[in-house]
Amino acid sequence: MRPIITLLTDFGTADGYVAELKGVLFSAAPDVTVVDLSHDIPPQDVESARLAVARYWRRFPSGTVHVVVIDPGVGSARDALAVSSDGRCLVGPDNGVLSPSLLASGSRAVSLPVPPTASATFHGRDVFAPAAASLATGTPIDSLGPACLEPVIRRTPEARRGSDGSIIGEVIAIDRFGNAISNLIAPRGGRIEIRGRVMPIRRAYSDAPVGDVIALVGSSGFVEIAQRDGSAARALEITRGTPVTLRSPGA
Amino acid sequence: MRPIITLLTDFGTADGYVAELKGVLFSAAPDVTVVDLSHDIPPQDVESARLAVARYWRRFPSGTVHVVVIDPGVGSARDALAVSSDGRCLVGPDNGVLSPSLLASGSRAVSLPVPPTASATFHGRDVFAPAAASLATGTPIDSLGPACLEPVIRRTPEARRGSDGSIIGEVIAIDRFGNAISNLIAPRGGRIEIRGRVMPIRRAYSDAPVGDVIALVGSSGFVEIAQRDGSAARALEITRGTPVTLRSPGA
Amino acid sequence: MRPIITLLTDFGTADGYVAELKGVLFSAAPDVTVVDLSHDIPPQDVESARLAVARYWRRFPSGTVHVVVIDPGVGSARDALAVSSDGRCLVGPDNGVLSPSLLASGSRAVSLPVPPTASATFHGRDVFAPAAASLATGTPIDSLGPACLEPVIRRTPEARRGSDGSIIGEVIAIDRFGNAISNLIAPRGGRIEIRGRVMPIRRAYSDAPVGDVIALVGSSGFVEIAQRDGSAARALEITRGTPVTLRSPGA
Repeated sequence: MRPIITLLTDFGTADGYVAELKGVLFSAAPDVTVVDLSHDIPPQDVESARLAVARYWRRFPSGTVHVVVIDPGVGSARDALAVSSDGRCLVGPDNGVLSPSLLASGSRAVSLPVPPTASATFHGRDVFAPAAASLATGTPIDSLGPACLEPVIRRTPEARRGSDGSIIGEVIAIDRFGNAISNLIAPRGGRIEIRGRVMPIRRAYSDAPVGDVIALVGSSGFVEIAQRDGSAARALEITRGTPVTLRSPGA
Repeated sequence: MRPIITLLTDFGTADGYVAELKGVLFSAAPDVTVVDLSHDIPPQDVESARLAVARYWRRFPSGTVHVVVIDPGVGSARDALAVSSDGRCLVGPDNGVLSPSLLASGSRAVSLPVPPTASATFHGRDVFAPAAASLATGTPIDSLGPACLEPVIRRTPEARRGSDGSIIGEVIAIDRFGNAISNLIAPRGGRIEIRGRVMPIRRAYSDAPVGDVIALVGSSGFVEIAQRDGSAARALEITRGTPVTLRSPGA
Repeated sequence: MRPIITLLTDFGTADGYVAELKGVLFSAAPDVTVVDLSHDIPPQDVESARLAVARYWRRFPSGTVHVVVIDPGVGSARDALAVSSDGRCLVGPDNGVLSPSLLASGSRAVSLPVPPTASATFHGRDVFAPAAASLATGTPIDSLGPACLEPVIRRTPEARRGSDGSIIGEVIAIDRFGNAISNLIAPRGGRIEIRGRVMPIRRAYSDAPVGDVIALVGSSGFVEIAQRDGSAARALEITRGTPVTLRSPGA
C-alpha cells in the first residue's frame, strides 16, 4: 500500500497555491497517493474545517497523513503542529482545527520548526507539506520537533438542559444542500423546535412531501433540519448559531 | 494496473461528505486509484449528471468502477444499483442517472441491499462506496445482490420532424462557457434556427468574429450554439428546453 | 515512481469535459498518476493560467508532464505545443500560457499535429491528452511533431523607474483571499504606495491589526497588498493593472 496524504485547505485552486503544495509533496515523496478532500473551505473559516476534520480523519486507513491548512494566523507566533492520533497523523496550524484528533485518547502533538527560508505567508508549502511528506515516508513524529503540551482546542458547543426538561442546542453548520446541522443527539420519537416551528424527527428526507421542512438524524448522528428538495436554511432563515430545541415525546 | 474508481457527486467538497466517502474507499480498497470527476453537479440535478455520465463512462479503461451519487431520493424506496456494462461497472441510485450504461447492449443491473446500520441520508458512504470497493477488488457483481430487471431509464429527448421537413430539437444542457448543447445531430451544410436567429453551422468557435453567436458541431457530436469569447446562453437568453430547429441546406 | 500528469484547465468539472479527458489519459497510460491542479481558472483567462503555471511547473519532480488547457483559440490556426524544459514536459495551446517554461534556458517546443478525427472544439481530449500520455510513457518529444521555433511568449509586465527614483509597477493578480499581487520585487525597508495610501512593507499578515491594509512580500517573492482578515482588493478597489509604486526607505 502506498502512503496516503490528504489535503484540506481554503486556498481554492485557481491561484496555483495548491499546485505548489502538491509539487512539494510529490518531489519529497514521489510514491505517495495525494487525495484532495477540499480546497473550498470558506476562507479562514477554522470552524467549518474543524467540523469536516471530525467527519473524516478516522475514516481513512491507519498510516494516513492528513494535511489541514486553514491558517489565518500564518506568520504569527501560533505554533505549527504535527499530531499522532489513533494510527493517523495530522499536520496543520495550532488554531484548533486539528482538535478532533487531539481530543482522542493517546494522541500526542509536536511543534514543527519554521525554517528561516520559509515564506511568512505560505506555511502550507514550506512547513506543513514537507512535514507531511516526512511522516508519510516513515519519519517518526518525535524527530520532527519538541512535544507541544498545550495545543489549542476548539470544541463543538454543548447543548444544555432547559428548565422545562428540554435540551437546548444550536445549529453548528449549514451544508451545500441548505441542511442545518445541530449539536443535538436525539432519540427517536422526540420533537424539534426551531424558529417557532415544531416538528417530529423523521427517518429520511423522503419521509416528507416535497417542500416540507423536517427534522431527522443526519449521517454523523446529529439532528439536522432539512427541506425536501429545497434549502431549509433559506426557507427558515437559519444560520450558524440559530437555537434548536429538543422536546421529549411526552413534552 | 491498479483498479480505478471514479466519483461524480453533487456534494461539493466543503462539508466533508466527499472526504468521508473517500475514507471508506481507501479503507476497503487501499490500492485503488480514486479519480474525482466532479463534485459540482448542481444539487439534485439528475439530468446534468446523466449527461455527464454519457460523456465519460466508456472513455475509461475496462475494469473501471464509476460511482455516481446524485440522489434526491436517498432513504426512500428507490433502489440502489450496481451495473455491469461493456466491461465497466457503475454504482448509484436507481433514478435514471446510470441510464447511458443501462441502455448499452449486454448490460445488467443488481439491487444493492441497504444494511440496517446505513444512514438514511448518506448512501454514498454506506452503500455505494462499499459496493464500489468490492467491485474494484474483484467481487463479482452477481454476488452483491439480486438482479434488478426494470431499472429506471431516462433518455435524452428526441428531436422530431416538422411539417416543413425541418428537424425540431431542444437545448439539453448549458455548459460553463455558456455554450448551449442541443439534441440535434447535424450534417455539414445545414442551418440552425434558435430564438428567431438563423445561422449556418460552422466548424469551430474561431470561425466567427469575436462576439458573434454561431452554431457548430460540439465534441459529443451534437449541434451547439456558442458565442465567440462570450456566453451564447446569456446573449440569446437560452435555457434548457429552448427549441432549436435544423433546416436542410436547401430549405 | 509512476509518471505524473498534472491538469490545469478552465473547464469546471460539472459538464464532464474533465472526465472525458481523464478517461483518455487512463486508457492510454493506465499506470499514470493524474494530479488535478485546477479546473477553476476563469473561462479563457490565459493570463491567470500563465501566472499559475509560473508558480508550479518547476515544483514537480523531473519527468512530470503538465497539461494546460486554457484555449480560447481552439480550432483556429493556433499551434498545439509540447514543450520540454528543465526535465519536465508541458502540453497546451500556443497562446502564451506555457511561457514560463519556454523562457527557461534549454527549452524546446514541438508542434503537435491535429488528427483529422479531432473535434474542432476539444483539443484537450483529442490532442493534448494523447500527447501527454505519450510523453508520460516515454515517447521522445521530438517524435511527436516538428520543432516550433517561434512559440507565442507572454511576459509579466515589467516595472519601470519613475523620474523621482521610485519603481512603478502594477497589480498582476488578485487571489482568492483578495490579496493583490504586484510585479514588484522589494527590498526590506521600502514603502509601497497604492491608490493614494502609503504603507511600509511588513513581514506577515499577522504583523498588522485586524482590518488594516498592509504590504508584504508574498510567497513568490513579489510585493502583495493584503488586508488582515479581509480582502484588500475590495477594501481599496484594486483590480488587475492598478498601479503600485515602491519608494526607497529614504524617499
